[in-house]
Amino acid sequence: MSSILEKITKPNDIRKLQPEEYPVLAEEIRQFLIEHVSQTGGHLASNLGVVELTIALHLLLDFPKDKVIWDVGHQCYVHKILTGRAGQFDTLRQLGGLGGFPKRAESNTDLLDTGHSSNSISAACGLVKARELSDGKEKIVAVIGDGALTGGLAFEGLNNAGQLKSNLLIVLNDNKMSISENVGGMARYLGKIRTGKKYNDLKWDVSKALEKIPGIGKGLVKKIRKSKDLLKQLVIPGMLFEEMNITYIGPIDGHNIAQLYEAFHSASRKEGAVLVHVLTKKGKGYECAEHNPSRFHGVDAFDIETGKSLKGKAQPTYTEVFSTAMVELGTTYRNLTAITAAMPLGTGLSLFQEKFPRRCFDVGIAEEHAVSFAAGLAVGGYHPVVAIYSTFLQRAYDQILHDVCLNRLPVTFAIDRAGIVGSDGPTHQGIYDLSFLSHIPGLLVMAPKNGAELKQMLEFSINYPGPSAIRYPRGAAYDGLTEYAAPIEAGKAEWLTTEEATAARVVLLAVGSMVQVAWEAAESLRQRGIAVEVVNVRFVAPVDEQLLARLSEYSLVVTLEENVVRGGFGEQVSDYLLRQRTKAEFLNISLPDAFIEQGTQAELREKYGLDIPGVIVKIEEVCKAKGIC
Amino acid sequence: MSSILEKITKPNDIRKLQPEEYPVLAEEIRQFLIEHVSQTGGHLASNLGVVELTIALHLLLDFPKDKVIWDVGHQCYVHKILTGRAGQFDTLRQLGGLGGFPKRAESNTDLLDTGHSSNSISAACGLVKARELSDGKEKIVAVIGDGALTGGLAFEGLNNAGQLKSNLLIVLNDNKMSISENVGGMARYLGKIRTGKKYNDLKWDVSKALEKIPGIGKGLVKKIRKSKDLLKQLVIPGMLFEEMNITYIGPIDGHNIAQLYEAFHSASRKEGAVLVHVLTKKGKGYECAEHNPSRFHGVDAFDIETGKSLKGKAQPTYTEVFSTAMVELGTTYRNLTAITAAMPLGTGLSLFQEKFPRRCFDVGIAEEHAVSFAAGLAVGGYHPVVAIYSTFLQRAYDQILHDVCLNRLPVTFAIDRAGIVGSDGPTHQGIYDLSFLSHIPGLLVMAPKNGAELKQMLEFSINYPGPSAIRYPRGAAYDGLTEYAAPIEAGKAEWLTTEEATAARVVLLAVGSMVQVAWEAAESLRQRGIAVEVVNVRFVAPVDEQLLARLSEYSLVVTLEENVVRGGFGEQVSDYLLRQRTKAEFLNISLPDAFIEQGTQAELREKYGLDIPGVIVKIEEVCKAKGIC
Repeated sequence: MSSILEKITKPNDIRKLQPEEYPVLAEEIRQFLIEHVSQTGGHLASNLGVVELTIALHLLLDFPKDKVIWDVGHQCYVHKILTGRAGQFDTLRQLGGLGGFPKRAESNTDLLDTGHSSNSISAACGLVKARELSDGKEKIVAVIGDGALTGGLAFEGLNNAGQLKSNLLIVLNDNKMSISENVGGMARYLGKIRTGKKYNDLKWDVSKALEKIPGIGKGLVKKIRKSKDLLKQLVIPGMLFEEMNITYIGPIDGHNIAQLYEAFHSASRKEGAVLVHVLTKKGKGYECAEHNPSRFHGVDAFDIETGKSLKGKAQPTYTEVFSTAMVELGTTYRNLTAITAAMPLGTGLSLFQEKFPRRCFDVGIAEEHAVSFAAGLAVGGYHPVVAIYSTFLQRAYDQILHDVCLNRLPVTFAIDRAGIVGSDGPTHQGIYDLSFLSHIPGLLVMAPKNGAELKQMLEFSINYPGPSAIRYPRGAAYDGLTEYAAPIEAGKAEWLTTEEATAARVVLLAVGSMVQVAWEAAESLRQRGIAVEVVNVRFVAPVDEQLLARLSEYSLVVTLEENVVRGGFGEQVSDYLLRQRTKAEFLNISLPDAFIEQGTQAELREKYGLDIPGVIVKIEEVCKAKGIC
Repeated sequence: MSSILEKITKPNDIRKLQPEEYPVLAEEIRQFLIEHVSQTGGHLASNLGVVELTIALHLLLDFPKDKVIWDVGHQCYVHKILTGRAGQFDTLRQLGGLGGFPKRAESNTDLLDTGHSSNSISAACGLVKARELSDGKEKIVAVIGDGALTGGLAFEGLNNAGQLKSNLLIVLNDNKMSISENVGGMARYLGKIRTGKKYNDLKWDVSKALEKIPGIGKGLVKKIRKSKDLLKQLVIPGMLFEEMNITYIGPIDGHNIAQLYEAFHSASRKEGAVLVHVLTKKGKGYECAEHNPSRFHGVDAFDIETGKSLKGKAQPTYTEVFSTAMVELGTTYRNLTAITAAMPLGTGLSLFQEKFPRRCFDVGIAEEHAVSFAAGLAVGGYHPVVAIYSTFLQRAYDQILHDVCLNRLPVTFAIDRAGIVGSDGPTHQGIYDLSFLSHIPGLLVMAPKNGAELKQMLEFSINYPGPSAIRYPRGAAYDGLTEYAAPIEAGKAEWLTTEEATAARVVLLAVGSMVQVAWEAAESLRQRGIAVEVVNVRFVAPVDEQLLARLSEYSLVVTLEENVVRGGFGEQVSDYLLRQRTKAEFLNISLPDAFIEQGTQAELREKYGLDIPGVIVKIEEVCKAKGIC
């Protein structure tokens, strides 16, 4: 660690520095970030973009009295450094280590554990109202990106912030990006402000010209100045915000600490909500990231010199399988359309977007719109595949139920990052989707055993006349068991071993990612003398009645899924077993009803007993206890 | 039926009328609506407000080629009349009768079954994209109220509509109301346009003055006219929309058919999204409704002369119990705050709002914001009670999980209209909340047996240091069983009969509204020789482990809940029973995994076997079949 950064060991230490040290500190922080994130992986580009912005805020604020909510929160690394957590960056995003998002448990300067987008203004409005009720004086700040601003929740927040009586400082961190390039009317509008010189000049001309009018001119200008609204229209670029009663200041150079401080300071003295529009460069100061900010949004460990990932290229991921399959299916099915909520790269839809630009829609960070929009496309005769990560699809629960399923519309939900996702931690684990989807009437809920089956299911869903969901995990697509490729039938499971082959007393009912685990565990168990069959469940909703009817043949029924227990697949099976009064023992291997912390996928699967050894141990235990073998 | 309305028997019939007949038709429709809704009940005020608006749209559009999406959809009665469904209005909102919302099954002029707010622009964007892909020529219209415009989903829709190349007509039906008076920056903005005469005059002065400047004046005005943006700032009131690339037309008198037609016609010929701002009066033409539009938003049968409800005043509703309790608790607990999403009357928070205006927040139709805002209030030290109907809370699933529960914040969700709600039908049934809430880690999920217990639970939740939810049904609060009033303990059920009293072989585990049913059914069953005990479950999450441990004493365990089967309470019990290998038979009395149609609450409970006779029959059947008595 170099000299100035070393002086920062706790919150507010930055306020002891001399102004001439600020730019040096910024430079040191940038080097620190590049060095550490290149080793641990993490969110790089967004943090490089907010170095000066965060420094300026920390110069203004007195922690923990004053409060900042970071929208999404992946840009909080600089805040963590400035509150004395630099020493923990070696453990960033690791099991038991420093979190990659704000964490209340880490520091009282982290107000809210976050990871999803667009909620900062709303939460900050709550803090402001609490301050008003208790006659507090603390400063309250929400930092939100232009990408997050496309989320409806942010608009709901602005709509309510417009009514605040006391100060709320909203810092709009405008880097022209969500994770990918930003879209929509709001992005267009911000772009217009960014490039608004000519436009501002014209306004200036108008004011000057008016003053020159003999007799009435000066009076008119005075009249204009008195009229708050029109004056603003002539002078201020942020009309859209002003119209909602939010004072607009900007645009400000987001890499000039003095200007930022000045703007924040003056904004924090006004009444009501004030939005400071800050222009930043995502990836600032690291050439590789500046040139390819999307790739450096969230990265694995990489080589600083070349920017190349240090992780060897492994087998294709489910995302890549999905990506290729969509392009193939897009050629066959001319009515196939695709929707992403600001993540064409992450979801793998970028290939489809390139090949079929008219049939691919990036709606911005707007999951609710994505689903209601899909309903419209389906009514219009096109089959939409809505590709949204499991954790973000939570935001569209109502639209899935109300707009798509109640109307029995043919829409496919392609749900990537289902199950344990790893180092992003509790806000990002996709471990609730089976629970929040399986009870929605009429929705097929599927999970593929391997990459080939993901493609099969996708094609099946496109031909299915109603709504369906396919959930698949983060990471490498399993390429085994390709010899099993029975056609997909709605609500039918796939037996991976023939019932004649063994006189098995144990049957493993495995969902998606757990099929590989069950299959390999079964091999070991057989070697230990336990006769096991494996079923690829395929459909969590509706569950295969014929499959259930055969379970009485077994002494032990095991369900395996990467989902919480409550509302998951296992509960359906146990419900059935109870009704049928089968004598079979039952074992539900899934995740506890709890938030799951950060760590690698392998570490977490081991910890929660979802890896092969864990599954073997659990099954052997029951077999021994119950005398099954 | 009077003469002109009689001529309308199918879609497009209106286009055969003479212009002088239009106002007569409007008058006849108003009388028709008042006469019918006063007998059947239904949504009155909003439909009276859109008579001319709907007539003008039907004059413009050619059904079913052209398409209209009605936001929420409660204002579609005039559309139903004009598409030939007047004859079915005697059955409005009744079991098997005409729906109170758009229904695809009724007519191909109803595009989407709806009932929730703010999705119309998104769905219409989907229709527009489908039209573009198939080179269609049909007109596409979204009709949205100013209340629905406060929902973030509507903003996401606008943000994307701003990118459309081909026409989308958005009709903004501005009546200054959600169900109650509208709130927020957007409402303030629309209000400013409404009353913008002076402001427009000033703009006019500026233009005129500029032209008068010798030499440069005319050139400058020309330059301004060329500059699309600045010209708009000088001339057009709808800047907020224009800034998002949506052409704004208005405001238009919403009760002048000729002006409406003209505006719609001209708007539908422009490229891209065009918003026509229409000013309407909610309740127009019926004095009682004009004076009290909130009360006449949705009504029971009433006397036309006086406007008074024909339904005798029954015992207090759960809403009223909640309302009174909140005021009492607000006096005791100074940190108690309350949040409503545009429904202070419906949720009963209006009393609290009156008594504690600073601690009550109406955030508009913005359920997501309501919950994230609550998180902020809780971080700031205030305990928020978020009062949202079960069906609308679906929209905040992610915020409940991510903003509140992950952060273990002390927030109470007061969930009215849980279970079967009746005549609003499938979009409004509150039958999924146990499923979408019970799997969220750390959230207490409660249901009271009677009004007194609702109050107990509310006070308990305010003292509980984490998140909790209380779900209670629409209608009269049960006032029996008040002799049972054990203090609420987290995760503890309440036995309503002592185990010593009987050697019961049957135990009924009843959730909330089903306690009364179970209790009365138990009385009958005892008379028929079946010894029954009843448990008031109280907590669906976490479920009472001690209760579960005692179930092995019984021959038959029955769970009763007004929720779908999947993810509900019954599945938890069956899961436990299976694990414990108890010999008890199990009967799960709940709703099927399906959308439930409209009808009275009593009719639907009877149909699905959730009323007392239905419960008795089911239990007797099992007892007979299994030899239990």
